[in-house]
Amino acid sequence: MDYVNGPGRNHLFVPGPVNIPEQVLRAMNRNNEDYRSPAIPAMTKTLLEDVKKIFKTTSGTPFLIPTTGTGAWESALTNTLSPGDKIISFLIGQFSLLWIDQQKRLNFDVDVVESDWGQGANLEVLASKIAADKSHTIKAICIVHNETATGVTNNLATVRKILDHYQHPALFLVDGVSSICALDFRMDEWGVDVALTGSQKALSLPTGLGIVCASPKALEASKTAKSVRVFFDWSDYLKFYKLGTYWPYTPSIQLLYGLRAALDLLFEEGPENVIARHARLGKATRLAVEAWGLKNCTQKEEWFSDTVTAVVVPPYIDSTEIVKRAWKRYNLSLGLGLNKVAGKVFRIGHLGNLNELQLLGCLAGVEMVLKDIGYPVKFGSGVAAASAFLQNSTPLIPSRI
Amino acid sequence: MDYVNGPGRNHLFVPGPVNIPEQVLRAMNRNNEDYRSPAIPAMTKTLLEDVKKIFKTTSGTPFLIPTTGTGAWESALTNTLSPGDKIISFLIGQFSLLWIDQQKRLNFDVDVVESDWGQGANLEVLASKIAADKSHTIKAICIVHNETATGVTNNLATVRKILDHYQHPALFLVDGVSSICALDFRMDEWGVDVALTGSQKALSLPTGLGIVCASPKALEASKTAKSVRVFFDWSDYLKFYKLGTYWPYTPSIQLLYGLRAALDLLFEEGPENVIARHARLGKATRLAVEAWGLKNCTQKEEWFSDTVTAVVVPPYIDSTEIVKRAWKRYNLSLGLGLNKVAGKVFRIGHLGNLNELQLLGCLAGVEMVLKDIGYPVKFGSGVAAASAFLQNSTPLIPSRI
Amino acid sequence: MDYVNGPGRNHLFVPGPVNIPEQVLRAMNRNNEDYRSPAIPAMTKTLLEDVKKIFKTTSGTPFLIPTTGTGAWESALTNTLSPGDKIISFLIGQFSLLWIDQQKRLNFDVDVVESDWGQGANLEVLASKIAADKSHTIKAICIVHNETATGVTNNLATVRKILDHYQHPALFLVDGVSSICALDFRMDEWGVDVALTGSQKALSLPTGLGIVCASPKALEASKTAKSVRVFFDWSDYLKFYKLGTYWPYTPSIQLLYGLRAALDLLFEEGPENVIARHARLGKATRLAVEAWGLKNCTQKEEWFSDTVTAVVVPPYIDSTEIVKRAWKRYNLSLGLGLNKVAGKVFRIGHLGNLNELQLLGCLAGVEMVLKDIGYPVKFGSGVAAASAFLQNSTPLIPSRI
Amino acid sequence: MDYVNGPGRNHLFVPGPVNIPEQVLRAMNRNNEDYRSPAIPAMTKTLLEDVKKIFKTTSGTPFLIPTTGTGAWESALTNTLSPGDKIISFLIGQFSLLWIDQQKRLNFDVDVVESDWGQGANLEVLASKIAADKSHTIKAICIVHNETATGVTNNLATVRKILDHYQHPALFLVDGVSSICALDFRMDEWGVDVALTGSQKALSLPTGLGIVCASPKALEASKTAKSVRVFFDWSDYLKFYKLGTYWPYTPSIQLLYGLRAALDLLFEEGPENVIARHARLGKATRLAVEAWGLKNCTQKEEWFSDTVTAVVVPPYIDSTEIVKRAWKRYNLSLGLGLNKVAGKVFRIGHLGNLNELQLLGCLAGVEMVLKDIGYPVKFGSGVAAASAFLQNSTPLIPSRI
Repeated sequence: MDYVNGPGRNHLFVPGPVNIPEQVLRAMNRNNEDYRSPAIPAMTKTLLEDVKKIFKTTSGTPFLIPTTGTGAWESALTNTLSPGDKIISFLIGQFSLLWIDQQKRLNFDVDVVESDWGQGANLEVLASKIAADKSHTIKAICIVHNETATGVTNNLATVRKILDHYQHPALFLVDGVSSICALDFRMDEWGVDVALTGSQKALSLPTGLGIVCASPKALEASKTAKSVRVFFDWSDYLKFYKLGTYWPYTPSIQLLYGLRAALDLLFEEGPENVIARHARLGKATRLAVEAWGLKNCTQKEEWFSDTVTAVVVPPYIDSTEIVKRAWKRYNLSLGLGLNKVAGKVFRIGHLGNLNELQLLGCLAGVEMVLKDIGYPVKFGSGVAAASAFLQNSTPLIPSRI
Repeated sequence: MDYVNGPGRNHLFVPGPVNIPEQVLRAMNRNNEDYRSPAIPAMTKTLLEDVKKIFKTTSGTPFLIPTTGTGAWESALTNTLSPGDKIISFLIGQFSLLWIDQQKRLNFDVDVVESDWGQGANLEVLASKIAADKSHTIKAICIVHNETATGVTNNLATVRKILDHYQHPALFLVDGVSSICALDFRMDEWGVDVALTGSQKALSLPTGLGIVCASPKALEASKTAKSVRVFFDWSDYLKFYKLGTYWPYTPSIQLLYGLRAALDLLFEEGPENVIARHARLGKATRLAVEAWGLKNCTQKEEWFSDTVTAVVVPPYIDSTEIVKRAWKRYNLSLGLGLNKVAGKVFRIGHLGNLNELQLLGCLAGVEMVLKDIGYPVKFGSGVAAASAFLQNSTPLIPSRI
Repeated sequence: MDYVNGPGRNHLFVPGPVNIPEQVLRAMNRNNEDYRSPAIPAMTKTLLEDVKKIFKTTSGTPFLIPTTGTGAWESALTNTLSPGDKIISFLIGQFSLLWIDQQKRLNFDVDVVESDWGQGANLEVLASKIAADKSHTIKAICIVHNETATGVTNNLATVRKILDHYQHPALFLVDGVSSICALDFRMDEWGVDVALTGSQKALSLPTGLGIVCASPKALEASKTAKSVRVFFDWSDYLKFYKLGTYWPYTPSIQLLYGLRAALDLLFEEGPENVIARHARLGKATRLAVEAWGLKNCTQKEEWFSDTVTAVVVPPYIDSTEIVKRAWKRYNLSLGLGLNKVAGKVFRIGHLGNLNELQLLGCLAGVEMVLKDIGYPVKFGSGVAAASAFLQNSTPLIPSRI
Repeated sequence: MDYVNGPGRNHLFVPGPVNIPEQVLRAMNRNNEDYRSPAIPAMTKTLLEDVKKIFKTTSGTPFLIPTTGTGAWESALTNTLSPGDKIISFLIGQFSLLWIDQQKRLNFDVDVVESDWGQGANLEVLASKIAADKSHTIKAICIVHNETATGVTNNLATVRKILDHYQHPALFLVDGVSSICALDFRMDEWGVDVALTGSQKALSLPTGLGIVCASPKALEASKTAKSVRVFFDWSDYLKFYKLGTYWPYTPSIQLLYGLRAALDLLFEEGPENVIARHARLGKATRLAVEAWGLKNCTQKEEWFSDTVTAVVVPPYIDSTEIVKRAWKRYNLSLGLGLNKVAGKVFRIGHLGNLNELQLLGCLAGVEMVLKDIGYPVKFGSGVAAASAFLQNSTPLIPSRI
């Protein structure tokens, strides 16, 4: 049974959960297995090795936790920090807000650096705070790589530069939920200490895996971190890694096989090609928004996100109606505006297993919804702008040349 | 494994096999069963009852034959006719050509009425032949309802009128492969004697079921028809229908459950709504073609097909290149031009489980391919024309209102 | 939805359709594709090459026909013979009977050599008929390798010896529906001219592929055979083989991918190991039947079948009740007795993707059903006999050593 | 791809994760969806209502948390208790041990009541402790309903009686991971304050849902409980329940549809029939163990578990070898002995979507493994004992009568 079925395919353009490739659906279409047989550890070993590649790390230690992004956040924080620890955190949208809320509830001393929604993290403020912190009371910098609510991508390389410049030992914790596997992310090069993502984002799996990767420094910190944790405790994983059985508690067999298939697809396409594809689709979306005469919620080009675009609607339109209408009439799923930008923006997710024509179908749908809702869009205008760019920049599919 | 995989979803716009809804894929995702247990006959009974509704017949007898459309053709012919029987058949494109080839090889005396490819069956010629055949030597009229190669829909009601006008007893055999479940088809009202379709067309299933429906008159004819047949013989089915076990040989359990799901979806959407959706998508496609400055292969509006559009390319373009390019660069599957129109047309199939945004994605893709191949298309032009129409005519999805 | 669901797994022990491995279900869990794209021919090429291995032929030409075993029979006969041709055919059970019925309806002059049901083909009679046929009026020998109704395996090597001894040119046509991929079968070595099977038998796929393989001599014969055929005509396939597009009409994409997976599994296990596994399970079943004090329908050891065992019940028991009861109470699907042995035997299919413990569960179930129905079986007796043998003969699973 | 594939079906008899019914696999075979559309809340509402039935509660509040049983434990504890709170907890096997370890790490003051492994919780000690606690310093009783490591079922009704007898207000927290949906469990009647299970146990789903149900008293306690929690915090769920959007963070769409299907199957079979089926299979297993001359790890009949049986092997045998051998030779997955009983017991899980013949196949397999490993089992002895009982007690499948 499906709830409220419509003819044809659902056009899924929320910024997660995203479209699952058929190969992954197939890989997951299976009975349970005994996870204590030799088969699952053998596969897990390959997963842990390969998952490091999506973080671009060779020295990191990955954890595949049966949880969501929210749980992955908690894992990153509680394993590395102690209650009362001072951390700097950037509030730039709904997801950074939620993370900060978690940080506070976990009893850290959070120094919130706020920006207007639509702007990136204020790294100048970071620099001054780091410069001032001679005694190294700041224990960690927490930053969302890509704020999913506003479509803002922060510059992580700059964060590292600031820390290095002042030789500051703060841990560098990154939420890569809507970036990793889609945007350029370099854990080792940027000296990220904990990075995390969720399976339902750029990896194009169902929800259920919080994927966390810890640097050697983060692992070291976990030995003395006093935050209470059990389910999210890395030490249980590390114990089972040593034993070669890998799992302190029952994993989802289906998600492991799904992850195997997702990684295989990723490596087949080539991680750099995947990133280029996201860049292409992001750019095409922004060109369409411009052609419609609408504004991108993201205020400067340097913060443009290649995984999600938040589109600002005119004041006389309620963006919530756009999302409702898209779903009710065109089987198109768009993202709502959240919190401060509720009613003001709608979001087009363009991450995961997606190609040019899927996006163009979505853009054509947005045009019709805009018309429905009373915005004087010119039919075909956004599609034309996007197509002109895509027709110039889309490579041949390598396996088909 | 997949052969020559590409990122994102394949855009399947050949006029069959078509996109399978997830509900049908799910229903088919199952182990084999004993088809002699009470379960399969119980389900088969519902299938046979419900399948009559897609032919709009109450008096017909349906057969679900494990074969393709080609086999369904053979079943229709061999059960009702004897070698040497005179039949009138209309050659208007590749599929009518293939059926005529089969008719000849089965040793019927085929009077071929040929039209230009792009025109419908010449029913004036039919009328004169019927008028002239006072002695009723013509045993059957064979006609393709929708010629998939050229996108031409014939007027079946007129055929019936001609036969009735002259009180001619010829059997009326209809290939509804690319029409039934998508175009208006009325077996009882139009006095069709045998109608047939294939599972991979508008029913949106995998290939494997040839669905044939016989009028009482056709069943009567089968008692004396002398064409040799065993696998395709209706009498074996009828024997097992009487026994209540239904199957003279092993059916595909998976296709039966798939057909059940497909019919459930059809009735949920409403057969009239399904036909209206096809009309909407057909019209939108034709508007795009016009906006591109290209010609429809179908020469008159009365023959326009709502399931497939054959687009004529300018002489300096090879349409085969368009199809190749679409697949190689945009993961878009278009239909080739066949035989007489090879290189001259490409085809957009718009039948089966499809909605507006899927079609618009395809149309945007065609625009990019046309540009690739050197045709001076204006980006967004076809999409705009189609969108303007669709935004006016697409109803809300009933389950979501 | 399922019709008449029961808790736990259905125990499928009819001699086809058989259990589908999860790997094959997964491979088939996919949308349709354009079968005219380069992908499907590329895969088809590997299938045709690999399918020859299951026939043990290097010189044969395989055809993957969208049909059932009944259709495969028709393909074998109509492509190689002309109406009126004299053929020798062996009637030893329901499936040979049905094939003979088809042969007669196709207007061949069938010389039926009948045996008691439970006996193999009478090859002495064959020898004398061949010896007598100096003028080579006999055009073909038609024989079922394994009669599924009685569990009788015929000796094909002897048939070849007889033909060779008398240098008789008759075609040698073999129904291998319940043998190929499970029993020792050697097309080239035994000089078989046409061999055939169905996808739902030892290949463990859904129903829908009739797999036919023709020797060069059979192909030669097809050039002059006068039987009317279109759907089943090899020449259409051969034409498309030459073109490299392979398909004269639409194949089931899903079955092609399923066949690919099934062949991969077969080669991974090793064809000889697969045959040995069937021999092991067949022997275990017969030991259980003996321990129950029941008779095997197969009258001599030389004819014992390793894919199906027909068990004779005492006269005071109706075997139909056993089959009904098994399904209604234990979710166990057994084969009915057919025609002459209806009510007298029930059948245990032990072919396809099956292992020792599945069979032992079935045997334990049969014991309970026998008790239910009033036969004084000793609980555990059949299982013990089978287990004692299997514990001695089952190899370690190679991939797990 | 599968890791270390074997022919035929894997016989999954670990006490979780268990066999998934095909209906559930089908329901989960789907793309992601926007969980903020109206469809998911509509379904979630039915799930929350129906899930209460598996706890037998009308007043409880359920939480479907994207986690495992370990996370569900943490949710139960941290939402109701504060660091330093005194709790009584029963150590009777590996899973109660792990829960106690968690309780300690979460900084509760755990009064551990230990029993020999193979015995149930010592409720006499509980009674005396409760009697002595006039000042109500004991805040909670934590008990595992069914200890999966030893196959011991505790008597929860007695726990309630003791608390009531002394009018003690301690919270009553129950781990029902390997009991709920399989054993008799009555949240309201027994006054359980928090009960929990995991999706991969008797519900027969993949791992990934920790299902927790809280009594009004537990909810009240959560308002003042001081344990730090964010991911596992009920208050976030309650907030979204009120909003009618239900999810504080992304759920697994697939598991929700899977749960819907699992509950539908449960209600179709009837919860009482499901419990009776488990009782039947548990009893049959114990009869087999007895017939083999082996001991049940569970020391008294009152503690016998109907979901898992831990079988004690003679001192000269290493039970680990039994489990290895079963998997390597017979594709049979048994449970290892854990911790104190490692090497001494192996476990047969008989919970979830399972029927009589599946179990008998497993028992026949165990007999062969025992023989392999040098134990002088009589072939068929266990199967006979189990069959004799099952043939007497198994009802007809209701849908097939």
